[in-house]
Amino acid sequence: MIESPGAQRRRVPVSFVAGVTGLWRIERITAVRGQSLPEAVRLDRIENEHPPTGTFHWTLRGVTSNARYTDRSENSRLEAVQEGLNRPSAKRAALIPILKTPEWWDLPQDERRAIFEARSGHISLGLEYLPAVARTLYHCRDLGEPFDFLTWFEFAPEDADRFEELVRRLRETEEWRYVEREVDIRLARE
Amino acid sequence: MIESPGAQRRRVPVSFVAGVTGLWRIERITAVRGQSLPEAVRLDRIENEHPPTGTFHWTLRGVTSNARYTDRSENSRLEAVQEGLNRPSAKRAALIPILKTPEWWDLPQDERRAIFEARSGHISLGLEYLPAVARTLYHCRDLGEPFDFLTWFEFAPEDADRFEELVRRLRETEEWRYVEREVDIRLARE
Repeated sequence: MIESPGAQRRRVPVSFVAGVTGLWRIERITAVRGQSLPEAVRLDRIENEHPPTGTFHWTLRGVTSNARYTDRSENSRLEAVQEGLNRPSAKRAALIPILKTPEWWDLPQDERRAIFEARSGHISLGLEYLPAVARTLYHCRDLGEPFDFLTWFEFAPEDADRFEELVRRLRETEEWRYVEREVDIRLARE
Repeated sequence: MIESPGAQRRRVPVSFVAGVTGLWRIERITAVRGQSLPEAVRLDRIENEHPPTGTFHWTLRGVTSNARYTDRSENSRLEAVQEGLNRPSAKRAALIPILKTPEWWDLPQDERRAIFEARSGHISLGLEYLPAVARTLYHCRDLGEPFDFLTWFEFAPEDADRFEELVRRLRETEEWRYVEREVDIRLARE
């Protein structure tokens, strides 16, 4: 949901692979809007590598890319406070793939930016939950995937309630009216 | 170079296939900055289809996508004056693939926009040459291709000098300092 500053602006390919193996145990898959994704038991987030050719139920591909909306001061604030993925304490995660409406993509850049931050407070909202909730945004619109974005969040079990609050508040924004399809996949690791 | 408004904001995949067959005869391939592309005799621009699996020298892939910088009034001005590709009179074309520097992509959105239009006049410059020069911008940065953009221009032989002027003026802008690799491929059809 929030754009990833710093090194994550570079292109890093990712594959989310759902099946019977993987680091993360899938706790639930919920269709928030539109069609859900098939059930699976485990999920892996694989960066920088070719996706496995073995057996899996489904896979979603994306890439980290340049920031599309944040200005310099917002980037600086995000970089100052956020923490990276893979923290030992982050035993919970969420993968939330999102497809926005054609109407959203037909908006010019300045109007998308105005809805994104001035009227929805996307960046400032996310900042309230840093560094507890670490996140990365993967783009997949240009790849011909079924979603436009793959949003990935990691947090400690004790921050799970705060994460629910963040997701709920984001879904109440004007920006979210432009979401056509959203699936919420919750994960845990031991 | 100029972003494509209207229907071209939707995702349309393209492959440029260079080899010994194709609609367009390659007149010359020039490395403007960085490494060139291998020589070839003919080129095809194939939209909406899988690229051919036959013999070819090289292929470049891209997609039309949403506009990244233009505001609503700029979109309207572009839409009012531009014409589509494939005009019978457009017997000349140019394919100019461009890779921008990491420094460019690390800039926040507002600073890229300021360089793009306020200081380089990218949109207003292109408007001066419409509708004579029709163009489409394909994105390929997220696809893991060797370039960030594939810019495609079509024009009548009598507008060739004006096209040279447009390209020369664009290369003199501040924005062009962020170009790391650029190849200029000139084409003609009968």
